[in-house]
Parts: sequence; structure tokens; C-alpha cells
Amino acid sequence: MVQWEGVMPAVTTKFTEADTLDLKMFEINISAQLDAGVHGIVLGGTLGEASTLTADEKRILIEKTVAIVQSKVPVIINIAEQTTKAAIEAAHHAEKYGAKGLMILPPMRYKATDFETITYFKAIAQSTDLPIMIYNNPVDYKIEVTLDMFEEMLQQKNIKAVKESTRDITNITRIKNRFGNRLNILCGVDTLALESMMAGADGWVAGLVCAFPAETVAIYKLVKTGRIKEALEIYRWFMPLLELDISPQLVQNIKLAEVATGIGTENVRPPRLPLQGAERKRVLSIIEQGIKARPKLPII
Amino acid sequence: MVQWEGVMPAVTTKFTEADTLDLKMFEINISAQLDAGVHGIVLGGTLGEASTLTADEKRILIEKTVAIVQSKVPVIINIAEQTTKAAIEAAHHAEKYGAKGLMILPPMRYKATDFETITYFKAIAQSTDLPIMIYNNPVDYKIEVTLDMFEEMLQQKNIKAVKESTRDITNITRIKNRFGNRLNILCGVDTLALESMMAGADGWVAGLVCAFPAETVAIYKLVKTGRIKEALEIYRWFMPLLELDISPQLVQNIKLAEVATGIGTENVRPPRLPLQGAERKRVLSIIEQGIKARPKLPII
Amino acid sequence: MVQWEGVMPAVTTKFTEADTLDLKMFEINISAQLDAGVHGIVLGGTLGEASTLTADEKRILIEKTVAIVQSKVPVIINIAEQTTKAAIEAAHHAEKYGAKGLMILPPMRYKATDFETITYFKAIAQSTDLPIMIYNNPVDYKIEVTLDMFEEMLQQKNIKAVKESTRDITNITRIKNRFGNRLNILCGVDTLALESMMAGADGWVAGLVCAFPAETVAIYKLVKTGRIKEALEIYRWFMPLLELDISPQLVQNIKLAEVATGIGTENVRPPRLPLQGAERKRVLSIIEQGIKARPKLPII
Amino acid sequence: MVQWEGVMPAVTTKFTEADTLDLKMFEINISAQLDAGVHGIVLGGTLGEASTLTADEKRILIEKTVAIVQSKVPVIINIAEQTTKAAIEAAHHAEKYGAKGLMILPPMRYKATDFETITYFKAIAQSTDLPIMIYNNPVDYKIEVTLDMFEEMLQQKNIKAVKESTRDITNITRIKNRFGNRLNILCGVDTLALESMMAGADGWVAGLVCAFPAETVAIYKLVKTGRIKEALEIYRWFMPLLELDISPQLVQNIKLAEVATGIGTENVRPPRLPLQGAERKRVLSIIEQGIKARPKLPII
Repeated sequence: MVQWEGVMPAVTTKFTEADTLDLKMFEINISAQLDAGVHGIVLGGTLGEASTLTADEKRILIEKTVAIVQSKVPVIINIAEQTTKAAIEAAHHAEKYGAKGLMILPPMRYKATDFETITYFKAIAQSTDLPIMIYNNPVDYKIEVTLDMFEEMLQQKNIKAVKESTRDITNITRIKNRFGNRLNILCGVDTLALESMMAGADGWVAGLVCAFPAETVAIYKLVKTGRIKEALEIYRWFMPLLELDISPQLVQNIKLAEVATGIGTENVRPPRLPLQGAERKRVLSIIEQGIKARPKLPII
Repeated sequence: MVQWEGVMPAVTTKFTEADTLDLKMFEINISAQLDAGVHGIVLGGTLGEASTLTADEKRILIEKTVAIVQSKVPVIINIAEQTTKAAIEAAHHAEKYGAKGLMILPPMRYKATDFETITYFKAIAQSTDLPIMIYNNPVDYKIEVTLDMFEEMLQQKNIKAVKESTRDITNITRIKNRFGNRLNILCGVDTLALESMMAGADGWVAGLVCAFPAETVAIYKLVKTGRIKEALEIYRWFMPLLELDISPQLVQNIKLAEVATGIGTENVRPPRLPLQGAERKRVLSIIEQGIKARPKLPII
Repeated sequence: MVQWEGVMPAVTTKFTEADTLDLKMFEINISAQLDAGVHGIVLGGTLGEASTLTADEKRILIEKTVAIVQSKVPVIINIAEQTTKAAIEAAHHAEKYGAKGLMILPPMRYKATDFETITYFKAIAQSTDLPIMIYNNPVDYKIEVTLDMFEEMLQQKNIKAVKESTRDITNITRIKNRFGNRLNILCGVDTLALESMMAGADGWVAGLVCAFPAETVAIYKLVKTGRIKEALEIYRWFMPLLELDISPQLVQNIKLAEVATGIGTENVRPPRLPLQGAERKRVLSIIEQGIKARPKLPII
Repeated sequence: MVQWEGVMPAVTTKFTEADTLDLKMFEINISAQLDAGVHGIVLGGTLGEASTLTADEKRILIEKTVAIVQSKVPVIINIAEQTTKAAIEAAHHAEKYGAKGLMILPPMRYKATDFETITYFKAIAQSTDLPIMIYNNPVDYKIEVTLDMFEEMLQQKNIKAVKESTRDITNITRIKNRFGNRLNILCGVDTLALESMMAGADGWVAGLVCAFPAETVAIYKLVKTGRIKEALEIYRWFMPLLELDISPQLVQNIKLAEVATGIGTENVRPPRLPLQGAERKRVLSIIEQGIKARPKLPII
């Protein structure tokens, strides 16, 4: 059963030079995540370049991940579809292929009304037994799931958590005040993770964890055991890297970081292209400085 | 050959109660457009609920439209895809099924860099002989195609026009100053159409035309023959209706207007739902008042 | 009596090297405006660096302007105050020193509610016999005066006009549809002036007119006599210069243009400083290109 | 000497029914602040309705505050002026009347360039011996003081601290990474205070403290002594009240809260008006619920 807490990497999809799935490198990365002690694997998010994957590729990725993790941690599938019908179908497939939970975005490519958004989420929730985390990211996806909308949606027992990406950190306190433990909160913005967890978030759906799993897990564990000062020290070191997550080119940024730590390649699928020129240099320099100053992690 | 001027309706897709294509009602609407004297038909845009259509449905719609218009006016296909590969494929299909031109949006669901956006557009342009109109709508789709980007893209001879939806009407003047007749401009925002055409836009990719084809064509023709005062009179009457186009629920709004003028149904595909409650009443009241005060059109 | 139509320059305040009022250069500029046939003079707006003037300087500027124009055109005073009391006082002073009308901004440095904003405007209107133009610029001043707010404010008979600076050009049509001739509209955004007047605006509170009075007046007159094509030609030439008005550094930009046309100096009052480095070069180059290509104006 | 840490209330200005300074109620409030253990008093900010005060009133308020606090804590004066000259004058007055530090906003009513903003701050800093806190609030005042700008400004030895109101909490970490202890940070946004202090902020320029001084000071002290859980509990209770600070009507909101806790009146100076109708009821209800559930504060 999914606990909806801890560090859950939103993993990248690995491609070969020939633009096919690179399952070998994918396994290397997932294994590194498991070794570091993550609490779940999130597949098919923005970082996974989900919008460019075929149905077949999605199936393969789920099955492969399920095989690698061997029930050590739950596999969570992100659903980001353009029709209610396709979303329900994706939920069925996720369950069938072995996923243990769903992360669901509002409808894609249409700014639905509150009523339509609620109807959409409810329809999917009612079609599956899997527990669900709502992905609330109005900055990138325009639709905000307000607390009033959650109030209504929580009638669905399997809606269990929210991936909080509003950038409005006060939401952590608002949600805790209103829903207590009924709705778990996972911070979805790398640069707000420490603050969010100190304010009560239960976990962190993380990005730079793809390249730096041990450091990410260390911050989480230190915060949860009250060793704030140590957590803050790692977090400050980590921040220039974490800022790479807050960019439309986060996939390219993080893949470049994965190359530097030996657990990924830079290949992306067009229209995405690898970083170019001055921007590539800027990002590489941040990564190199980060690796040079990499902190020795405390025993936790 | 497409002239990239005049009124081009971005038509809605008609669905039956059972959520299948309603080709009969579709034909009624297209015929009304042709009777009113439109200069082209744009398929598969936002108004066509393109993001919810299957590949098969898209093929049927193109073939059906080509059959109805019988070369009286060109059929233009909107391309809004998530990968370069899929966009090129869509261009091939459009050509194969009889389209005479393409309207192309930047990549969907990814805020590409300027370089990636240019690369994307060029790759599609190079893969087809069809003439192309770039759809520039940074408000709804986040990516802006700047004039510097156009400068580079115009090396592709088949990039011929821009659907101007930046809401920055000064762009009409900037484009004319910089590219003269090399780049035709079609206004893509109903509420700015008259002003845009008076400032030099060559045409209007229109929305409310779906329900009011004669009035839309009349405004265009009056402006082009210098009968500004008459055009302005119709435009002022039309404005409360045209504002229905500037809404995330434009599909539902316009379908409701089509019902009122007898050339459409209200059926939409989920996650879209028909308008609800107070909002539905508000829109209906605008439509009813518009129809009540419908102006007698001058002979042009 | 003010007609609230035609071209009204929002004039700059001229300073000497010693940061005192340069009334000599001020007179040169005002005279150039009158020679070009402007329909009013607006004092004390953003362009006049009003927020940096002392009460005494404001009085001198009004009296001086009244003396120069000798009732040929009305002198309009902009009121932009932080308290209701100060605004009423400013209105009294304006009337006393010879102004014929007021332009009024919402309260400065406080984002008032709709109710407070209406109360503020009404209090000033009731305290004076001068006719009033409301300056509606939510982009720069945060407070939007909506049409519903105007509905209530128009109970004050001396509220006569609006300086439309919302950037939402559709507002021209909305206002005409709702208030007809009860509320005159003067476009307050240089880059939207032609479109606004073609859509029904009665005049233009202009910026670049400070340096180019003849061209500005020509555009207005050509539009009003239906010679759209000629107006458009001048407008297109003018646009790169007009864009200098759409900048936080509009004062510095326009003063630099005034230097180039011989009717001003570059002196500004700190915190404003003259343009620096690359930005100064960019602006100068636009001005030089504009002057080089200056069109021969048609006889109107 | 100012330490630039701890809780510093940005106090409200008390007015009588006759719109004059209410120094008696002012003293009651300041005394309540001192009793609660605040670390400084900030005069003349937004909360102090500074933009509506005369020069004379400002002088009286400074002298009165200095007399009340009797050097127990430093009195800090906010400078928010429209010219460099007036700002320098205000700094001189502050020093002369007994203030121990300055808080300085960028120029008012003009969106200065980075260069102009730096020049403005430096000119004031060079004109005074008082230590300075830069107030960085791009949301309300449009001008952002970036870290690169601080880099240059820190050449002025008496620039000591920043009031961080960017709403971008990551800035705490960025500033600490870049400037270490050279620049103290005081959180300027009530709803982000706990998170900011846990991320390293040295203090809190607070708003709701005006009505709830003991609770505000308790949160600060608990955080600084590592009693996070207790701090969080008070903070969660406090949040609906703290949200009253994040509103254009924060003055009216907070004055209403001061009435409820017996240390203020509701009088504001026009254009501000007391809250009206439904909004007033909404705010009153939040205040009443807050007072009803007021927590027993732990001994610290």
C-alpha cells in the first residue's frame, strides 16, 4: 500500500541515440534510486517526457519498473490525458501492468472549469481501486485545484494525497488546517522542499533526485528526525542544482546532471533538444560546482 | 492555391449524443459557411476540439470537408502535436487527404526554447509542399513566435502567413514594417478583428463565424472596400457575441450560439461539458440579445 | 469649454542643468504644439514628472502654460494624489490658476477597492466645476476603472471623458456600446492610437507628440476625414518612435527625441537619470532612423 | 545599535475621528509591543499609511515613538519617497528626531532601472550614518532588488539588512549562500514568516503583530530555540489572521484586528475607508474565530 510520504523521484525516461527506449540505462538509474532509499517511483510525469511516449512505450516502462523494484517501493503512474476516456483507460492500464498508485493532472490542453475538473478527477477515481495523488500545478498547467474543490473531491475515498506545486507554500498550512491527515501533501517543487516539509508536508516528489538520490533522501530523513541544521546545510549546497528543476528545460537540465553522476544520458526526444551554447555552459558549470562541493552525508 | 486572406472559419467538430462524429450536422455548418462566402475552412483547431479526436476521426473530418467544399475554397489543417515526428506525420496525412494548407502551433505541452521552436517549425515545413500559416498565440500556448524567429523561419518558402493571436495589436504594424507582403497576417482574435484589418491584416481566422457566417464575412468585405462606418456598426452589434470567443469555454459558447442559429448542436466531448447554471444563462442571454438585434446586412 | 477630442499632448517638464524649471525651453515646446494644431495641453502627468514637482513648481507651470496658450486651447491638469484631501486641494488650485479641465488618476500608492475608488473620484468631482477626464491605466497604476464603476460615476455630470490606457482596445467598443456619447474616449497609449480612433475614440492624449507634434496631429486629422491609407502610412513610419512611449523610461526616451527635433533638453530629475550605455544607443538609433525617414505630410 | 533580527512590528498610525493623530491610542499599542518583547519598531511603512502623512505628522510620530521606547529597542523609519532629494532629507530628519535605523524602499511612483535604483539607494546611504535595511517588495512596488544589485550596494557599509518580500522564499537560501552574514534577512510577509526563519531569516518585520504581539514574538522565539513543533502549532492557528496581511486592504484588516484585541481603532485616512459589507463580515469572522481559538502560549 502506498504511504504517500517520503521521497518519490519523478524519473526521467532514457532514450538511445536511435530514439528508442534505453532500458539498460533506465534500470541503472532506478537501481540507484532504490539504493538511496527512496519511498516510491513516479513514472510518466513531465520529467519522463510522457507527452512524447507512445502507448506501447508507456506499457513497457511500467512493466520494466515494476520488475526492477520488486515491490520494495510502490510504482506510481502519472496520468496526463486530454480526454476523460483516455484518462480512465490509462488508469486501467496502470493497474493492469502493476502500478500501485496514480498521480493525476487535470485535463491537458484545455482549461477546464472547476466543475469540469472535479468531474474529470471523480470519473477517474471511480473507475479504479488505486489510491490517487492529485497533481496541483497551476503555474505550468493553468488549472488550480482549490481547497474547495478538494473538499468535494475527498468524497472519493481513494483520493489520498496532493502533489503541491502551486509555489504558494502557505498552502501547506491551509491544507493541514482544513483536512488534517485526510490529505497527504508531497511537495512538487524542488526549491521549496525543505520549507514545505518543515511546514508539514509528508514527502517530496523530487526532480534532481534523478541525479542526486542520496542527498535528496538525506534531506528528507534529517528533517523528519528534527536534525534541521544538518538538513539546511545540505539543502543550501543543493540549491543551485535544485533551481535547475524550475525551468521549462528541466528535463534537459536534469539529464545533464544525470550524465555527470553517471546514471543517465543526455538524449531527449524532439521537439526537445539538448541544451545549446551559453545556456548549456551555464548549466554544466552549476553541475560541476555542485559535484566539486558535494557534501559528506551524515549517518542518519 | 491558398491566398491567406479573407475570412476563414475555425470550425467546430460536431458530435452526436453518443459521442461519435455527427457528419450530417457538420455538413450543414460547412455549407452555411460556403454560402456566406468564406475564403477557406480551418479544421482541427481548438474550436474543433482537436485534442480529443482520434487519428481516424481526424482523417474522416478532412476527407469529408474536402468532399463538401469541392475546391471552392481551400481546406486548412491545424497541426498541434507533442512530438516533431507526430507533427510531420500529421502534415503528410493532411496533404494525402486533400488539404491545401497547414496551420501550425508550436509544440504542445512543452515550453520549447526559441531554437527548439524554430527547429520544430522548420522540420515540418521541410517535410511538406503545403503552404503554412504559423499560429502565434503565446497567451494560450505560452510560446511566442517573435519577429526575430520569423526572420529566420521565412527562409522556408512555404511559410506564408501568421495567425496573429498575441493580443498585441501593434504586432500588425511591426510585421508589415519588417516583412511587407512576405508574410500575410490573419487576425486570430475575434474581438480584435476589425482593428487588425484596418491596421493591415489580410484576413480573419474567425470563431463566432461558426454561428454567424454572413455577419463575419460582411465586416471583412466592408473593411476591405473602405466602408468603415458600416463595418463598425455591425462590429459593435457583434462585440458581445465575439467576446464569447475570448474564454476557455469558447467551444461551449460557440456551440450554444450555433444551436441558436440552427447550424449546430451543443454536444461536446469530456472533459468538456455543456455550460452549467448561471454561466449558461449569462451566455444564452448574450446570444438571445444578439439575435434579437441582428442587423440587416448591407449589399456589398 | 473642453471638447474632449483631438490631440492633447501630455507635455514634459523642462529642467535646467541646475534642476530648476526651464521655462524658456518649456515655452518653445508648448508653442510648437500650438503651431501644429493640438487641441489641448495636459500638464502634470507621468510625462511631466509630476511626482517629483513641488507645489510651487506645479503652480508656476500651470500659470505659465495658461499664459502661453492664451485660451487658444484648454489647459488640462492631471491630478495624481495620495489622499482625497490633497486631490481636492489640487483641483481647487488648478481651477484657480486657470486650468479648464482635469485629468484624474485613482489614488496613488494604494490599491483602493472599487468602492473607495468611486468615492475618491466622486469627492473630487463634487468639489469642482471643471470638467473631468478619468485616467484609466490599470497596467501602470494597478486600479482598473471598470464599466460598472463608470456607470455609477457618470451620475457626476462633470465626468466627461476617459483616457483609455487599459491596452484592451475592445474597451473602445464596449464603452461606445454602453455609454454612447455620454463618455468621450481619448486613447492614452501611443501605439494603439490609430486603431483606437478607427474604432471610435474621440482623441489621443499623446506622448511622442512632445517631439513630433505635426505628425501626430496629421494622423488624427487624416483618420477623422476618412483618409485611412495616408494615416496608416504615417503611423507605420511613426511606430518605432511611438514604442518609446511604452516603457518605464518613457520620460527619458521622449526627452531624447525632443532634443533631436530641437524642442527640448534631456534633463530629468533624480531618481530618473538620462539613459545609459547600450539602451541610450538603441533609443538614439530609433530616433535617428525616424528623423531620416520622416515623411512629407499631406495637406489636410 | 540595531541588530537587524527578531520581531519588528511595522506599526499602524492611529487617527482620531477628526482625522488627526491619535497619540494616546498610538502609545497604548507601542507599549503592548514593548511588553511582548519585540526587538524594534518600524514607523512609516505601508501599514503606517505613510503616503497620507504630512511632514509634520511624520516628525511627531518619530519623536513620540522615541519617547515611548526610551532606547529599549531601536526605532526604524521607513523611507518611501519620490525624489532622491526628498529621500535624503527624510533620512536626515529621521536621524535628527532620534531614529536608530532606516528601512528604504526603491523610488515611489517610478519604475526605475537597476542602475537608477542602485544610484538612489547609494545616494541615501552615503548621506547618513544610520544603518539601513533595504525593503525588497517587487510584488507591490514593481522594482526588484536583485542579488547582483545587492552585490554592488553592499559596498556601502551601512547597508546591513533586507526586508525580504519577494514571495520567493528560495531567496533566503540564495542570499545566505551569496552573502553569508554580511546581509541580515527579515521576512516581510506574514504568511511566509515561519518557513523563512526556518530557512535562515534573522527576523520578521511583522504585520498582524500590531494586534497579536505576544503570539508573534512566541513564534520567533520558539523557532530560534529549535522548538519547531510548538512554533508550528501557533503558526497554524495564526495563519487565517496572517493572511489578512496579504491584501491591498491590510491596513483596514489589521486595524479591525487591533480593535478586537483592544489596542487600536478602525479609523483610516481617505482614500482608505473602513471595510464595507460582506468583506467586513468576512474579516470580522476570521478575527473572531482567531480570538476564540487563541492558544495558550508556552513559557519560553
